[in-house]
Amino acid sequence: MKKVTIGIDIGGTNTVFGFVDKEGNILAENAITTQDYAKVEDYLDALVAKINESYDKVKTDIEVLAIGIGAPNGNYHKGTIEYAPNLVWGNYEVQLAKMMKERINYPVFVTNDANAAAIGEMVFGAAKGLKDFLFITLGTGVGSGIVANGELIYGHDAFAGEVGHVIVEKDGRECNCGRNGCLETYASATGLRRTVYELMGKTNLPSKLRDIPFTELTAKKVSEAADEGDKLAIATYEYTAEKLGFALANSLAYTSPKSVFLFGGLANAGKLIFEPTKKYMNKYALKIYQNNVDVVPSGLTGNAAIVGASALAWNELDN
Amino acid sequence: MKKVTIGIDIGGTNTVFGFVDKEGNILAENAITTQDYAKVEDYLDALVAKINESYDKVKTDIEVLAIGIGAPNGNYHKGTIEYAPNLVWGNYEVQLAKMMKERINYPVFVTNDANAAAIGEMVFGAAKGLKDFLFITLGTGVGSGIVANGELIYGHDAFAGEVGHVIVEKDGRECNCGRNGCLETYASATGLRRTVYELMGKTNLPSKLRDIPFTELTAKKVSEAADEGDKLAIATYEYTAEKLGFALANSLAYTSPKSVFLFGGLANAGKLIFEPTKKYMNKYALKIYQNNVDVVPSGLTGNAAIVGASALAWNELDN
Repeated sequence: MKKVTIGIDIGGTNTVFGFVDKEGNILAENAITTQDYAKVEDYLDALVAKINESYDKVKTDIEVLAIGIGAPNGNYHKGTIEYAPNLVWGNYEVQLAKMMKERINYPVFVTNDANAAAIGEMVFGAAKGLKDFLFITLGTGVGSGIVANGELIYGHDAFAGEVGHVIVEKDGRECNCGRNGCLETYASATGLRRTVYELMGKTNLPSKLRDIPFTELTAKKVSEAADEGDKLAIATYEYTAEKLGFALANSLAYTSPKSVFLFGGLANAGKLIFEPTKKYMNKYALKIYQNNVDVVPSGLTGNAAIVGASALAWNELDN
Repeated sequence: MKKVTIGIDIGGTNTVFGFVDKEGNILAENAITTQDYAKVEDYLDALVAKINESYDKVKTDIEVLAIGIGAPNGNYHKGTIEYAPNLVWGNYEVQLAKMMKERINYPVFVTNDANAAAIGEMVFGAAKGLKDFLFITLGTGVGSGIVANGELIYGHDAFAGEVGHVIVEKDGRECNCGRNGCLETYASATGLRRTVYELMGKTNLPSKLRDIPFTELTAKKVSEAADEGDKLAIATYEYTAEKLGFALANSLAYTSPKSVFLFGGLANAGKLIFEPTKKYMNKYALKIYQNNVDVVPSGLTGNAAIVGASALAWNELDN
């Protein structure tokens, strides 16, 4: 009997889950559509039915020990989802762990997706054995998980690790959070696009991207253009990296990490983003941190969201 | 027999020490002049001689369990002082804990003064029972200690908690660290003075401070003027608080503390600094942190440096 935990990642559109062993292998996985349900009760009934369906296929081989859930605004301390506007059934305080346990009786642990991924990095990924690191997801938004003294920092109210909402420009871009200049407005896929169009206005740099309307531009098109030497696209990465490097430099002064792991769409641009980010981080960092902190790609493979949520549960079982 | 730890605070000018019980009472204290010694060996010989002298007076009542030392660039992991330019005998890697133990055989723990004071706040002060808080010293410079999950964050290389060197203005004031715009250049006693003179140039605000040369102005004179309604002095606190509040707002996004404790000369200005700092912190903070985090004076009393260093040792004995 192989011991496993169930990792569940709740997204606004889909929910994915898998049975994950202690080496991070996904033995079975499946998904349901999050937004098909108006009420959390119906959503959880459907999710548990789908989990049981997968379980029936593998149950002779596995023993389930616990469930880890990554969810928007997931609160580790309370086991709740706290007012998640992206979830059609979840824009209030949802007693997620409690309701889950009523339907499927294993220990249930909840946090947000970036924290779960950070724990995934520690348990299964490139941060194995590291006691102090930053994990940053550069996706549609910017999320983060901070590990110090070998533990994820949840903070007083479980809202720690919001590096995406550190203000890097006091009167900068409008953020969805209602403030201005958050890192997320620059160093996300959305931020990258905003930069392309700002630079179209500010500079005369020639670019094939000038033929593409704002609403049709993807991060992938920007990285492809940059790979082909497109000057505006390259300048866009440089600009993005300056903001990200600055934020990272300031971040080092809090927890003095050994490494910074970058994950997600923007990180997939490889050295286009890593090289200038390292350059600016070292430029802005206090001397004691300069050239002393690694900025490296995440080592998470496969479905990182499932593996991260599973790692949350594994990590709790180990502590 | 009362159990005590010895708290030692090494400053550039003086070294103070005391025998401190578990309630934070200093049973005996004394000092030597740090800068009287060219070599660390001679300095430590003299310090230990002075400690033994004090010990002889109280030894029938006490049992010493350990020694805690707060020192500039004190490295917790290595028990060293790392290249402290302010110490005449210490601008290299000084094996402080090892050399101390050779002279007086108790367990020895070392960190920097701000970290020691943060632990003092947790063990003896206003942070008792808190698992997540920030401790900021607003003195000649700005230091900090960060506690998360009930533990001081030392970080990978023991250099965590340098909030004074977070850049709050990218092209801001020249800092002693060689960079520009660090919080320390605004929110320290020195920063306060720089602001007074910048505002003399930028504004036409009337002020009695205009009669005082730069080199003669003290933080105390600024707070006295502000208390009397001096417009420039009041504007100086407002300006200082805007930078400090901004830095604190960004700080919340890392460790989500329950409370921020302010300590040191500038904090002694009371509501002149606390009120506007809270206002700006809440203005710049992500909504989830707004009006949710206390900004309060340190609860450390007596000789906070000695008590903090002693608390470091008590905290280690308890863990």
